[in-house]
Amino acid sequence: MTVSRAVELDGHIIDSGTLQTCFTTIMEQGGTFEVESFDIGKSETEESYARLSVRADTEDELKAIIHELHQNGANPIDPKDATLEPAPADQVVPTGFYSTTNHPTDVRVDGEWIPVERNEMDCAVVVERTPAGARATARVLNAIEADDHVVVGETGVRVKPPERPRDSSGAFGFMQGGVSSERPSQSTIAKIADAIIETKSSGGKVLAVCGPALIHSGAREALARLVRTGYIDMLSAGNGFAVHDIERDRYGTSLGMNTETLDHPRSGHKHHIYALSEVIRAGSIPNAVAEGLIDSGVMYECVTNDVPYVLAGSIRDDGPLPDTITDTIEAQNAIREQAHQADMVLMLSTLLHSVAVGNCLPSTTRVVCVDINPATVTQLLDRGSDQAVGMVTDIGTFVPMLAEQICE
Amino acid sequence: MTVSRAVELDGHIIDSGTLQTCFTTIMEQGGTFEVESFDIGKSETEESYARLSVRADTEDELKAIIHELHQNGANPIDPKDATLEPAPADQVVPTGFYSTTNHPTDVRVDGEWIPVERNEMDCAVVVERTPAGARATARVLNAIEADDHVVVGETGVRVKPPERPRDSSGAFGFMQGGVSSERPSQSTIAKIADAIIETKSSGGKVLAVCGPALIHSGAREALARLVRTGYIDMLSAGNGFAVHDIERDRYGTSLGMNTETLDHPRSGHKHHIYALSEVIRAGSIPNAVAEGLIDSGVMYECVTNDVPYVLAGSIRDDGPLPDTITDTIEAQNAIREQAHQADMVLMLSTLLHSVAVGNCLPSTTRVVCVDINPATVTQLLDRGSDQAVGMVTDIGTFVPMLAEQICE
Amino acid sequence: MTVSRAVELDGHIIDSGTLQTCFTTIMEQGGTFEVESFDIGKSETEESYARLSVRADTEDELKAIIHELHQNGANPIDPKDATLEPAPADQVVPTGFYSTTNHPTDVRVDGEWIPVERNEMDCAVVVERTPAGARATARVLNAIEADDHVVVGETGVRVKPPERPRDSSGAFGFMQGGVSSERPSQSTIAKIADAIIETKSSGGKVLAVCGPALIHSGAREALARLVRTGYIDMLSAGNGFAVHDIERDRYGTSLGMNTETLDHPRSGHKHHIYALSEVIRAGSIPNAVAEGLIDSGVMYECVTNDVPYVLAGSIRDDGPLPDTITDTIEAQNAIREQAHQADMVLMLSTLLHSVAVGNCLPSTTRVVCVDINPATVTQLLDRGSDQAVGMVTDIGTFVPMLAEQICE
Amino acid sequence: MTVSRAVELDGHIIDSGTLQTCFTTIMEQGGTFEVESFDIGKSETEESYARLSVRADTEDELKAIIHELHQNGANPIDPKDATLEPAPADQVVPTGFYSTTNHPTDVRVDGEWIPVERNEMDCAVVVERTPAGARATARVLNAIEADDHVVVGETGVRVKPPERPRDSSGAFGFMQGGVSSERPSQSTIAKIADAIIETKSSGGKVLAVCGPALIHSGAREALARLVRTGYIDMLSAGNGFAVHDIERDRYGTSLGMNTETLDHPRSGHKHHIYALSEVIRAGSIPNAVAEGLIDSGVMYECVTNDVPYVLAGSIRDDGPLPDTITDTIEAQNAIREQAHQADMVLMLSTLLHSVAVGNCLPSTTRVVCVDINPATVTQLLDRGSDQAVGMVTDIGTFVPMLAEQICE
Repeated sequence: MTVSRAVELDGHIIDSGTLQTCFTTIMEQGGTFEVESFDIGKSETEESYARLSVRADTEDELKAIIHELHQNGANPIDPKDATLEPAPADQVVPTGFYSTTNHPTDVRVDGEWIPVERNEMDCAVVVERTPAGARATARVLNAIEADDHVVVGETGVRVKPPERPRDSSGAFGFMQGGVSSERPSQSTIAKIADAIIETKSSGGKVLAVCGPALIHSGAREALARLVRTGYIDMLSAGNGFAVHDIERDRYGTSLGMNTETLDHPRSGHKHHIYALSEVIRAGSIPNAVAEGLIDSGVMYECVTNDVPYVLAGSIRDDGPLPDTITDTIEAQNAIREQAHQADMVLMLSTLLHSVAVGNCLPSTTRVVCVDINPATVTQLLDRGSDQAVGMVTDIGTFVPMLAEQICE
Repeated sequence: MTVSRAVELDGHIIDSGTLQTCFTTIMEQGGTFEVESFDIGKSETEESYARLSVRADTEDELKAIIHELHQNGANPIDPKDATLEPAPADQVVPTGFYSTTNHPTDVRVDGEWIPVERNEMDCAVVVERTPAGARATARVLNAIEADDHVVVGETGVRVKPPERPRDSSGAFGFMQGGVSSERPSQSTIAKIADAIIETKSSGGKVLAVCGPALIHSGAREALARLVRTGYIDMLSAGNGFAVHDIERDRYGTSLGMNTETLDHPRSGHKHHIYALSEVIRAGSIPNAVAEGLIDSGVMYECVTNDVPYVLAGSIRDDGPLPDTITDTIEAQNAIREQAHQADMVLMLSTLLHSVAVGNCLPSTTRVVCVDINPATVTQLLDRGSDQAVGMVTDIGTFVPMLAEQICE
Repeated sequence: MTVSRAVELDGHIIDSGTLQTCFTTIMEQGGTFEVESFDIGKSETEESYARLSVRADTEDELKAIIHELHQNGANPIDPKDATLEPAPADQVVPTGFYSTTNHPTDVRVDGEWIPVERNEMDCAVVVERTPAGARATARVLNAIEADDHVVVGETGVRVKPPERPRDSSGAFGFMQGGVSSERPSQSTIAKIADAIIETKSSGGKVLAVCGPALIHSGAREALARLVRTGYIDMLSAGNGFAVHDIERDRYGTSLGMNTETLDHPRSGHKHHIYALSEVIRAGSIPNAVAEGLIDSGVMYECVTNDVPYVLAGSIRDDGPLPDTITDTIEAQNAIREQAHQADMVLMLSTLLHSVAVGNCLPSTTRVVCVDINPATVTQLLDRGSDQAVGMVTDIGTFVPMLAEQICE
Repeated sequence: MTVSRAVELDGHIIDSGTLQTCFTTIMEQGGTFEVESFDIGKSETEESYARLSVRADTEDELKAIIHELHQNGANPIDPKDATLEPAPADQVVPTGFYSTTNHPTDVRVDGEWIPVERNEMDCAVVVERTPAGARATARVLNAIEADDHVVVGETGVRVKPPERPRDSSGAFGFMQGGVSSERPSQSTIAKIADAIIETKSSGGKVLAVCGPALIHSGAREALARLVRTGYIDMLSAGNGFAVHDIERDRYGTSLGMNTETLDHPRSGHKHHIYALSEVIRAGSIPNAVAEGLIDSGVMYECVTNDVPYVLAGSIRDDGPLPDTITDTIEAQNAIREQAHQADMVLMLSTLLHSVAVGNCLPSTTRVVCVDINPATVTQLLDRGSDQAVGMVTDIGTFVPMLAEQICE
C-alpha cells in the first residue's frame, strides 16, 4: 500500500535551500515524491512555487515525512483549522501537542491564519478567543495552565523559515557566513560595529550576553564604555560576571590577578568572596552604587544609565549576590522578556547564558556570537538562525577593538 | 622599616612542593626570608621541618605574604586562639572574615585545635560552643545566620595541604599525573576501573556527575549497567541528562537520532519535548517508572536500585522535569550533601555540574575527570586537588570500556 | 552595459545543492540571472535540467561569475575546444592556465570530451596527442615541463561535482553526515567497520594515514592486527610514527611511558632516539626486521605482509630513519601514488599527513577522518569531499574498537 | 642486594624545584635515598647545597634513577672524564651514546669541564681535540661522521637546568606564568611588547616563526610593519605563509577572501596558485620584488630590509616557491642556524614550524608562543623552557595590537 499527500512551497525556495532540504528529507526518510507543479522564479527577485506529491508505504511513515517537511517550510495544501484540545492540568499538555520551531509560524483558527506571538523553540501553542479575535501564543511547558486551548498535531499550522536576503551588501550582509577562525579579524570586527550602529540608528535594541571571561581577559572597561555610550540596551549575565566586575572595581583584580600590571598572581583569591560579601551587606548592587561602594565597571554603568540587567543564578555560583535570580524558571522568564525585545544579540564568551537566551529567540533576530572556543561558536550557531554570525577570537581583544570602532 | 614574622612548616615539604611554593611566594610578593632552622628528612619516609623568618617593608605587605604562606601550609609559630565575631545579619559575614581553602583546616578555640567540619572552598567558618566542646563548621555565605560566631583574620587557623603519597603503586598511585590526551587510553581506563573497584571494596562511595553528551554519544546502557551492578552510589546531573535518557527509553533516540542505527537523523526533534511532557503528566520519574512508562536506562536503574540522584536546574532547561530542583541554592545544598559523602567522584562530560560538585569537595576526595575537550579537563583539575586525574577521551567509548573492565 | 552568457546544469541539481549554489553565487557576486529553461525531475530518480542566462555589468565581472559557476558544475552551453598553450619553461605554466578542482573533469580536444586523468586540486591540465588519441592529465606545477601543452582559461572544460547518493542505506550511506562529537560512538564505529569490510570485499584498497598519537594512545597493537589481517593495504605516515612504533617494540614505551603499566613516566625519554639510532645502524626498517631487531608492531606487520608504506619527512623529525623520504616533493609524489590507488582512506589523528594525502584525492574517494580535535576534523572535511565522514573521538579507543568489530 | 651512589646539587635548588624533582624521581622509580649533607641558603639570594646517597635494588635500576637525576641537574660526585667512542660510520652513533637535554651542559675532557656548544635536545656530543684545547659540540644524528669521538654514557657529563629568576620584575619577569586564556589580553600584549623592546635595545635578535593563519586573519600589514621598523631580525615560515602573503599583494585576497571588505568569499580560490606560478616564473621572491611584481607585505619587507628568511618545505605545499627548501634535513639546518642566533623567539600560530624551531633551542632562549588553540600552546610550552610564555588569543588581533604598542 502507498499513501500520499500534497504539499506546497513558495518563495525563494531554491537559493534558500528549502527545496533541496525537502527533496533530501523525503529520500532520507524512505519516501518518494512527484513534482506536480513547478514554477521557477525567472530572475533573482521572482519567487518560485512547487507542489509535490509525497508518498510513503505507511501512514506513519508519511506522517513522519510530512512533519519534517512542515518544519522546513513545506505546508500541506488543503488548509484546515488547527485542532485545539484543553490542557488537562497545570503544566500538562495534551498528548500529541504541536511543538514549535523558532521560525515565524501561523495557525489557522476559525478559517483565518493568525501569527503565533512570542514564538520560540520547543513550546506549545495556546489559542485564546477574545472579543477582538483569536490570538495564538507560544508557551513553555511550565507556563501551561489547566484548560488552556493547546494546538495538537500539525493540521492548520504553517511555518515560514526566513529566506536568504537578496543581496549581501549592507551592514548585515556579512551575517550569512557561519563560523571561521581564519577570517580577517579586524575587518570582521568593523562589520560587526557597523551592524550595531545600524541597529541603533534604526531604533533597534541591543542585548549583550556576557560571561566572566570577559572580565578576566580585561575587556571590562571597553564593555562599560559601550553601556555608557548607549550601544548596549540590556545585559544578560550570571552571578559570576557581576562579582568579578565588582571585584575589579573594589580590588583592581579579577580572579585575584591585577588586570593591568598582571602582578601578584597568587594573591587575592579571596577578593571575589570579599566583594560578594560587601554587596550582600549593602543589600543589592544599586544600593552599593548609591553608597559609593562601587564606582566603575559594567554593573556600575548599567545602574547609573538605567540599562536593565538580568543576573541568572547557576549551581556553580558563590554567594550569590542579592540581585541574582536563584530560581531558574523565574530567571528564564526574565531572560525571555529581554530576548523578545532584542533586535540584535551579542553573545560574548558564555555558553550557558548564550544557550539560555538563544532558546528564547525567534530565528529572525540578529545574533553575533564570539568565543575563543570554536566548539562553543559552532554549537550556538547550529541552533538554526540564518541571521547569526560567529567569530572565533579572544574576547579580551575583541571588545576593546569593537568599542574603539563604534565610539571613534 | 622592616617587619618580620616567623612561620613553620613540617611534613614532606620538599617533595610535596610546599617549601618551594613558600620560597617563591615570598620572592614574588617582594618579601625576603631567613631560614632560621631546617631539619631535612634523612630518607623518603622521614618528615622535614623548616622555620622561616619572613620580612617585608610594611605590615600590610607582610600580612599579604603571610596570608599566601598560610594558604599553602606554612603557619605562624605563635599559636593564639582564632578571633570570632558575630555575624551582623543573616547571610552577612563580619568584615575580614576568614575565607576557607579546600584543604583540611583546624581552628584554635579555647586553646585547642579543632578541625573544620564539612570544609570546602570559599566558605566562612562558624564556631559553636556546645556542652561536648567547641565545633567549627564551614558555611557558604548564604547559610550564615545573624549572630553566628564567625572566624575573622588568620590568627588561630592552620591549613594542611595534602601531601604527595609516598609511592605511586596501588590503584590510586596513578592519580598524580595531571591531564593528557596522549596517554595510552585502554591502560588508563583499566587503572580507573581498579580505583573504582578498590574504593567500593573498602566501603567507599562513588558519585557519578553526568552530562547529556553521555547519552548522545551512546554510553547510556554502560552507565545504567554500572548503576545496576552497584558501582555507582549516587548520581548528580541536570534536567537535560534525565530528559535525554528517558527520550532514549521512550523513542530509541537521543537528540532525535536513533543511537543504534544512526537512522533518520532529522526526525524526532520533538521526542525530547514529548518525553518531558509525559513525565510531567506522570508527576515524577519514580511515578513514570511505577506506571511502566520508563523501563530502561540510567534514571530507571537509579529508581529501581535506590540510587539517590540530584537533578539540578539550569536556565537552559526545557520543561523542566518535576524532579528537577529549580532553585539553585537548594540544588547546591543537595549537591553538597552528595559531595561530602563521596569518596570518589567521576566527572563525566559536564563542565557546569562538575564545577558545582567540585566547589563542594575537600581536596582529599579522589576525582576522575573525563571530557573530550582538554580545556574542560584542565579547568576542572586546576581547582586544586592532588587526588585528581584527568583523561581527554570520548565519553561514548570510555564508559562502555570502563563498564566492561569493571563488570567482567 | 550588460553582458550575458548562457550556462546549463543537469543531474540531481536540486537535492545535491548545485542549483542553490549557482543561484547564490550569482547574487553574491553582484550578477543577475534569468532561467531560460527548467525541467525538474519528476521523482527522486529523474534528473533535472536548467539553462540560465547570467548577466553582469562588465565582461570581467561576468567572467568571475562564470568561473565560479563552472567550479560548481554549471557549464557554458556552446562547447568549444579547450585552449592549449605551451609551457614556456620547466615548472612554469602559461599565464591564465586552468587550475583544477578535485571533481571529475573533462576537457574538449579536437571536438571530443576526454576525461582528465589523475585529477586532483590545484593542478594544471596537460594534453598529449598520441596515436591512440588525445589524453589529458592533471599535473602539479613542479611536474610541468617546457613545451607541455597546458589548458588555458575555462573554455572547453567541464566539471561534474559528485552527486548526492540516491539513498542513505548501505555501508556508505552514513558518509554524508559531516562531523559530530555527539553521535553515538560505538554505533558510528560499527558503520565504519562495515564500510571497510564492504570496500575490501568489492576488491577495493584501504589506505591508512597515521599520526604518532596513535602509538602514544595505545592503539598500536590494534592497527598492527588490521595490517596483519589484510584490512589495510597501504600505510602513509611520518618518521615519528615509525620511530615510536619501533620504540614500543624495543623498549615497551612510547614517549618514554610504558603503554601498559603507565609506569615510570619520567624514564625513557632517550628511548626514541636510541630506537632511531639502532635502525640507522641496521640500514633500514626491513633490514632491522630481517636481523630480528624488530619483531612486532605496525611497521613489522607492514614489512612481513608486504604492505607498502610511505614515510614522509618533516622539519620536526629526529633522525630521520633511513626509510624516511626527506625531500618533500619526492615524498608528495610517493603519497600521490598511494592516494590515486586508494578506494577508501582512513585519516587517523594526523593533520599534516592527512592534508598531504587529501590534496591528492579526487572528490570521489571515500574518506574517514578521526581526531580528538574537532577543528582538525572540520578542516579536513572542508576540503570538499561529499564522500567523507568525520568522527571526533579518542584514537586510543577508536582503533581497538574498530579492529574488534572488523576481525570478530 | 642494594647498590648506591652519591649525587650532589647546588644552586637555588628549592625554589627552582630541583630538589623536589629529585626526591620524587627517586621515589617514583622505586629507589630510596639518604640526605648526607644539606646546607640551605639562609636567604633568597644564597644558594643551597645537597648531597644525597641514592640506593636501589639492582645496578640497572640505580642507573635508571641516576640517569633521571642527571637530566634534572643532580650530578655524580666523583668527577671522571667523559667516555669517548668513535662513530662506526656516517650517521651511526656508538651504542649507549649520551643523548642531550636542551639545558646548558658541560663534559669533562682531560680533567677539564668544557661547555657543549650549540646544544639542543636529542643530540649526540662530539669532542674534538684542537691545538687550542678540546671542544664539545652537540650534533644531530644525521650530522655524525665516521670516527667522530662521541660521548657514551653519563660519566663526565654535567647538566645545569636554568634556575628561576630571583625576581619577577623587569620585562621578562612575567615569562614564568605558563599558559592562560583568561589573562588580561591587552596587558599581556603590553608586557610582550616591552620584552621585545628590551631584547632589541640590549642588542638581541628576535626570530618570528609564522604560520599562514597570520595572513588569513588579517595580521599581515602589522607584521610587515614590525619587519620594516627593525623589530624582527629573522623570519622562519613555510611555503604557504609566503604564498598567501604574496597572494594578498597581488590579488588583495587570502584564501580567496578580500581581507578588507570580506567580499566575494567564493571567488579567487585560484589566486594562490596563480601567485605561486608568477613567482616561479620570476625565479625567486627577490627577483619578483626586483621586477616590481611584489610591492608590499611581509616577504617584500624581508627582501627590501635584508631580513633573512627560511621557507621550509612540507608535504602539504603547493608549488612550491623556488625559495622553499624542499629537503627537510637541509631545511632543519637552516632553521638551526636561525634558532642558535635568536635571543627571543615569537611563535605565531604555527605548530609545525614552532616545533621545528623549538627542537633546536637551548632552554635559555626566551620564547613567546601565541595560538588560538590552547592545545598548541600547551604542547609548545611543555618542551621544557622556563623562559617561555604562552598566550591563547587571536593572531589577527594580537599582531596589530603588538605592533601598535611597539611602534607608538
